Amino acid sequence: MKRIAILGSTGSIGRSTLSVVESFPDRFQVVSLAAGRNVDLAFEQAKRWHPRVLSVALESQAENLKHRLKSAGITGIEVVHGASGTVTVATHPESDFVVSAIVGVAGLEATYEAVKAGKTVGLANKECLVAAGELITAEARRQGKPLLPIDSEHNAVHQCLRGGQMDEVRRIWLTASGGPFLNTPVSKFVDITVAQALNHPTWKMGNRITIDSATLMNKGFEVIEACRLFNLPPEQISVIVHPQSTIHSLVEFVDGSILAQLSVTDMRLPILYALTYPDRIPSELNFSLSDLRHLDFSPPDMEKFPCLQLAFEAAKTGGGKTVALNAADEIAVSAFLEGSIRFQEIPLLIQEVVSETPVGKLESIKEVLMLDRSVRTIAAEKVASLSGRSPVSVGARKN
Amino acid sequence: MKRIAILGSTGSIGRSTLSVVESFPDRFQVVSLAAGRNVDLAFEQAKRWHPRVLSVALESQAENLKHRLKSAGITGIEVVHGASGTVTVATHPESDFVVSAIVGVAGLEATYEAVKAGKTVGLANKECLVAAGELITAEARRQGKPLLPIDSEHNAVHQCLRGGQMDEVRRIWLTASGGPFLNTPVSKFVDITVAQALNHPTWKMGNRITIDSATLMNKGFEVIEACRLFNLPPEQISVIVHPQSTIHSLVEFVDGSILAQLSVTDMRLPILYALTYPDRIPSELNFSLSDLRHLDFSPPDMEKFPCLQLAFEAAKTGGGKTVALNAADEIAVSAFLEGSIRFQEIPLLIQEVVSETPVGKLESIKEVLMLDRSVRTIAAEKVASLSGRSPVSVGARKN
Repeated sequence: MKRIAILGSTGSIGRSTLSVVESFPDRFQVVSLAAGRNVDLAFEQAKRWHPRVLSVALESQAENLKHRLKSAGITGIEVVHGASGTVTVATHPESDFVVSAIVGVAGLEATYEAVKAGKTVGLANKECLVAAGELITAEARRQGKPLLPIDSEHNAVHQCLRGGQMDEVRRIWLTASGGPFLNTPVSKFVDITVAQALNHPTWKMGNRITIDSATLMNKGFEVIEACRLFNLPPEQISVIVHPQSTIHSLVEFVDGSILAQLSVTDMRLPILYALTYPDRIPSELNFSLSDLRHLDFSPPDMEKFPCLQLAFEAAKTGGGKTVALNAADEIAVSAFLEGSIRFQEIPLLIQEVVSETPVGKLESIKEVLMLDRSVRTIAAEKVASLSGRSPVSVGARKN
Repeated sequence: MKRIAILGSTGSIGRSTLSVVESFPDRFQVVSLAAGRNVDLAFEQAKRWHPRVLSVALESQAENLKHRLKSAGITGIEVVHGASGTVTVATHPESDFVVSAIVGVAGLEATYEAVKAGKTVGLANKECLVAAGELITAEARRQGKPLLPIDSEHNAVHQCLRGGQMDEVRRIWLTASGGPFLNTPVSKFVDITVAQALNHPTWKMGNRITIDSATLMNKGFEVIEACRLFNLPPEQISVIVHPQSTIHSLVEFVDGSILAQLSVTDMRLPILYALTYPDRIPSELNFSLSDLRHLDFSPPDMEKFPCLQLAFEAAKTGGGKTVALNAADEIAVSAFLEGSIRFQEIPLLIQEVVSETPVGKLESIKEVLMLDRSVRTIAAEKVASLSGRSPVSVGARKN
């Protein structure tokens, strides 16, 4: 019986994780949940899963939830809130496995504390590796515990890497769907609307990640994540466009053999893999190879999608540059979604902010969070001057 | 330093193996070679590699070779001949690794003796698994030594299997190029010429295997080999047509993940893999993923290619049926190449012979070879009656 904590239980990955737990009640047990601002769903999850601890964003929400649980006759659930509540969920002594799926830097501290507490962590939070990859992977090595990737690409890489040793890897190839503008000529980019950018061809995801997929910044973040997770320089990571998203990524070994992982585009699969690793258990998430007809590939166009190039550059430098890349991107994407800047201005804004951020070497999560906040302020000021309006909200989203 | 014996050194796989050895002189050393009837090439190989033992087909050839070596001032090479000579090469006490690459049942006994002598064997000889798979895999298990597949499909499967445990495998998918008649309507099969059948789209190989690829019997043999090598029933093996032969095979795990292996179509790659397993060493056999554009897939047409269906049926029954399948196919293909029967008569002839062969359970290599010989006689008689001519040569090819 694996005892699980979920950071971000009301989000997309959190709900998929609970769906996996539901399918295997004899294997997994929910110990603690960190929900967000969706108190109604948090209440439903408490009713269904009876965690020892449940955390919500605000103190007022926690009070509200306590009353509702009491009225419903549900007892034995400790309700906590805020950043410290999330850490309580992440480090609960009864959990073996922590699913880190809070979106944004809000997940950073709790994930780091989970790693530090010796938990095996399944990582779906991008910022943990993009902004604080060196710190978190170093701590995991110290603890001798694996960081298991819960996203389709790195999970695929993790599977393919089983075909050899790390020093036998020549190159990791991350596949990219190419997003909705793969075949849009760059001359038409000026006309791109928010609705078009939100229309991803293969995956249904949150708004920010969908825009990041349209700019290929999401793939850029994945390049940085791959560097940190697998301890490889960006020169050993490549991106290949594969519109069907059937092959989730590939590993090329020094002898010339390449292993690839294929599956349905369903996040429950990497979640199940991480939860059961090193074992595999039967699921109904079947990909029908008999129905497979064509797979297409092409190299990415770095000039058309400069965000990808920016990410490779930030990965080479590391330190503050990847923190800035992530923070500036979040502000730029918000500004695009709000109509304050155009699609093509996203990479321009990010490039400016990143180039102005010192490389630095970040020694703690606190330093990462401080730099993140100051980069957001700078980025928001640039948005304001670009759009001629007052700065957009600069705070990191609270969970 | 790995010390290598090669059974079939003058054939295609044997020469590729020597090419691999040549590329890594500090890793591999040639201990013994079993050549065939090509004494000129055997002489060149002796000059270049100075094996301890060299075997040729006939006594007269051995005498000839001894004189030539003496004249050239080359000493210290024991020259042997015939089936016992091949066994001497296969079991030489100084070798660690035996490459089994003699075509036909001639390679059976020596390969079995190599396994029995505790050697690690790299298998390129099809008959070892098709005709005597139960015996050879049982002996390898007794010895606790791996049988490493040296053909692109099973080698790919071997690599993909590293991504999980054997009891986590749902299905093995062998890819098939589909051969030259993939898109030929079955109504045109009556007109197929030998030249057309010898024109394989992706691999350059010997005549028999090329015809076997055109009928898909080669894929059928590979289904049987996969059953024996990986200890799975034929119900867990599938074939998928993939004309580019870029993905060499795939393994589907119970959780729904599928791993695939891709590489150049160069036999040196599986040879290198087998020789260095469990390590991988850098080679120049690179597949350029950046240049990859399309991969196509389709299910095989069992009605158009009945040989594949015959192989699945023989795999289910086992015993004498797979011996008969192989022997009847060799006679049928020879008859087709000689113009005695038509392309479409190949499966008809095989089906008749296999259905008349008792299942039996074969307890020794000798029993396999006896059954093989009697099946050939029956098959040759059927060819004669079909073509109205005298029976074609029925003996198993000597090395």
